[in-house]
Amino acid sequence: MTEGRRRCTGAPGHRWGTDSLAKLRAGRAALLGGLIGVSGALAAVLANDIVCLAMTPVLIEGCIRRRLNPLPCLLGLACAANVAPARPPGVSIDRGSTRERRAGDDPDPSRRGGVVVGMDGLWAYDGTLTCYTHRMGTRAYAVTSDSSPFGAHSITRREPTATDVAIEILYCGVCHSDLHIARNEWGMTQYPCVPGHEILGRVANVGSDVTKFKVGDIAAVGCLVDSCRTCSSCEQGMEQFCLNGPTMTYNSEDRHLGGLTYGGYSEAVVVDEAFTLKVPDNLDPAGASPLLCAGITTYSPLRKWNVGHGQKVGIVGLGGLGHMGVKFAAAFGAHTVLFTTSPSKVEDGKRLGANEVIISNDEQQMNQHAGSFDFILDTVSADHDINAYMAMLKLDGTLVLVGAPPNPLQLSAFSMLFPRKHLSGSLIGGLPETQEMLDYCGRHNIVCDIERIKMQQIDEAYERMLRSDVKYRFVIDMASLKE
Amino acid sequence: MTEGRRRCTGAPGHRWGTDSLAKLRAGRAALLGGLIGVSGALAAVLANDIVCLAMTPVLIEGCIRRRLNPLPCLLGLACAANVAPARPPGVSIDRGSTRERRAGDDPDPSRRGGVVVGMDGLWAYDGTLTCYTHRMGTRAYAVTSDSSPFGAHSITRREPTATDVAIEILYCGVCHSDLHIARNEWGMTQYPCVPGHEILGRVANVGSDVTKFKVGDIAAVGCLVDSCRTCSSCEQGMEQFCLNGPTMTYNSEDRHLGGLTYGGYSEAVVVDEAFTLKVPDNLDPAGASPLLCAGITTYSPLRKWNVGHGQKVGIVGLGGLGHMGVKFAAAFGAHTVLFTTSPSKVEDGKRLGANEVIISNDEQQMNQHAGSFDFILDTVSADHDINAYMAMLKLDGTLVLVGAPPNPLQLSAFSMLFPRKHLSGSLIGGLPETQEMLDYCGRHNIVCDIERIKMQQIDEAYERMLRSDVKYRFVIDMASLKE
Repeated sequence: MTEGRRRCTGAPGHRWGTDSLAKLRAGRAALLGGLIGVSGALAAVLANDIVCLAMTPVLIEGCIRRRLNPLPCLLGLACAANVAPARPPGVSIDRGSTRERRAGDDPDPSRRGGVVVGMDGLWAYDGTLTCYTHRMGTRAYAVTSDSSPFGAHSITRREPTATDVAIEILYCGVCHSDLHIARNEWGMTQYPCVPGHEILGRVANVGSDVTKFKVGDIAAVGCLVDSCRTCSSCEQGMEQFCLNGPTMTYNSEDRHLGGLTYGGYSEAVVVDEAFTLKVPDNLDPAGASPLLCAGITTYSPLRKWNVGHGQKVGIVGLGGLGHMGVKFAAAFGAHTVLFTTSPSKVEDGKRLGANEVIISNDEQQMNQHAGSFDFILDTVSADHDINAYMAMLKLDGTLVLVGAPPNPLQLSAFSMLFPRKHLSGSLIGGLPETQEMLDYCGRHNIVCDIERIKMQQIDEAYERMLRSDVKYRFVIDMASLKE
Repeated sequence: MTEGRRRCTGAPGHRWGTDSLAKLRAGRAALLGGLIGVSGALAAVLANDIVCLAMTPVLIEGCIRRRLNPLPCLLGLACAANVAPARPPGVSIDRGSTRERRAGDDPDPSRRGGVVVGMDGLWAYDGTLTCYTHRMGTRAYAVTSDSSPFGAHSITRREPTATDVAIEILYCGVCHSDLHIARNEWGMTQYPCVPGHEILGRVANVGSDVTKFKVGDIAAVGCLVDSCRTCSSCEQGMEQFCLNGPTMTYNSEDRHLGGLTYGGYSEAVVVDEAFTLKVPDNLDPAGASPLLCAGITTYSPLRKWNVGHGQKVGIVGLGGLGHMGVKFAAAFGAHTVLFTTSPSKVEDGKRLGANEVIISNDEQQMNQHAGSFDFILDTVSADHDINAYMAMLKLDGTLVLVGAPPNPLQLSAFSMLFPRKHLSGSLIGGLPETQEMLDYCGRHNIVCDIERIKMQQIDEAYERMLRSDVKYRFVIDMASLKE
């Protein structure tokens, strides 16, 4: 992580209300420095970005409207401009801190009173003066089109706001979704794309209000880096279903810097502590990193449907998700049955905890188990016959999809009707449940079975993943990024 | 119903154990009549069906094995033969009473020690002497191929066993399933086929052990006429999901007479009282008849998913099922929304109880309601886009299919995953729930909106049903069968 330019005084991410003003008046030294340099700062503003001046009346109006003293705000603006010699080409207007927007401002950008200064060091303003965002250059691996190989790429991370945690990434798991997104198989990818949402690393820096982490801690980030935190889903701790759209770890709108979020195929990441998870000390960090997606994706539905003792539970597929499904179902006490097309996986399935293994393209084996399952977790993300597995369920049994095959499932209505059965989907898990899962894994010493690779091997790893040639998750050793 | 030949003494359906023998020995007159006529009876046996003689040693052996006195059994056989002058051509071997088989006999016919005499009046013997089944010629309407029109047809009903109720059919509703089966659209039809499973009529006769009904009562029969009654589904009162296969009212194996069951497009039906339902006196009998399928099919899922106050509930389609879904959802207190493709049905939907009506092919209307439904009941049995309705559900909302479109649903996995949603099937209801539904309808005076037709109009009614040109259920006035 390349250290950015010197930081402007004032706690990043804090709204400058009367408390902040009082502190300023108490004589915070750096701000006085800004005051001294005010004329030069204004010149720099003019040179850097005419927007700075254009927004000044708006800023003053906003301050007055919010009963703030506009002078320190203007000084802060000058300070920011002073430390930012040039607005980099292509930097878009920053929409400011979403967290502040949530505090009551109009969520429609077109109707907000403010605009934001786009600079390397940024004052974000959207109806109130919200946060100072300082960017840091960060090494990463990216794809630039749906058919290009991965290559070294430089991305920008914000400097931690008051509630942010900066993490030096040690390991990042390789999820099948990474491949789907990198190759635009779900039709929603923007490039350049830096995948990776099974992130585990060491805390390198914390914002002033961070309480859960200190520098040096092991921390983790999964598929989510933000959400609105106020909707009914967020209030229930299911931020993955945020009604205003969660911010995914990559290929999502970056609510701080604008543009896109970039994932864990990189040397560092900055994430609000609310979306950063604690990792039990006893877990192997490389093996623990895929828990952030493969782990929670399987843990969540098994918990929601109360899988446990006395139940016959099927796990379809023995890949990154499936092998964790087997481990969790067995740990929860269910009679665990693995469905696989690969006879070569029978022994491994049993080693991982399966009581039985069914070769799913053997009609006779399938018929023997028809109508006998309480619950089936289908982890397969390739096209497959869902009716064959629905037929395995008993009355009121449930099959939960956690894979997302590219083509629609061909679901016979009769598969649902006779007898009454249930089909559901499940998507990762919310932050509280993800922490619960990590804590459970800590108590039961559960991690993923992994194969370590270097960042430079990612294209080859994707090809092997497509051939199911991995037991059972690739994990990138991010030290390789420095090679 | 053409009255059959005179009945042989001995309570039908009773196993002739020591109690029965004691009663016989007490001098039941008709059996003595049989004894008097024994020589003539044996001659008749010889003339009628050589099987009668062939089975005699088997019968004797079976009686001895079961510590029964073979003499009365032989007398019964003789009696049966005596009253049955000719075995009708094409009558298959009768497998006897399933109820008796369930009492502990080997369920595998190939391993049973006995065979059964096939005659117009029958002694059924399958390991024990079980029941005397006297057949009755019954007028009906049948199709004889997947493309033939309906025509008059004669079927045979058994004379009531001790637990049977014979019902003179007054009304029979016309269900879309009737059309599916008549035209072999589900690939499982055997011909001749007499559909009809929304049967309401007057009790004409009852077996000696019947307690729920007396002659003259209004009674009803739905989609089921029997089940094993011992499996876990049956024990839970969900006979429609009988693990040994329920006996459907038509196009199912007839456990009494062999061959097929025949449905309600007929003048009479004989059903075990356990599968016969009581109909509240205050309900219009014609309007009540479709409650037996359209009613319970919609009532059951709305009850299972606890639809009620504070919920936004959608009903897809305003046909026979849909109009009952609207009535029940509204009666249960839900905010009820009808989805229909027909603007002409808006007013009627509201009249039936819908708070709102959405024209489902109006994208703007659909978008306005996206993600807002707790529950949707999809009653459409034609192919349609299920994903459009999944998109209407909120987090953890459920869509239940009660229609069975001929082609597989094209279900996007993303429809299930974001946010987490549920898709289920539901199939009619068990006997206890069907009675509960009828009782509920009695208390709330709920019946179906119907159009009466004559039996002879059934082909035309099918064509109109395909055009959704019925408000909202055709009901056959069975008096027309006598015309």
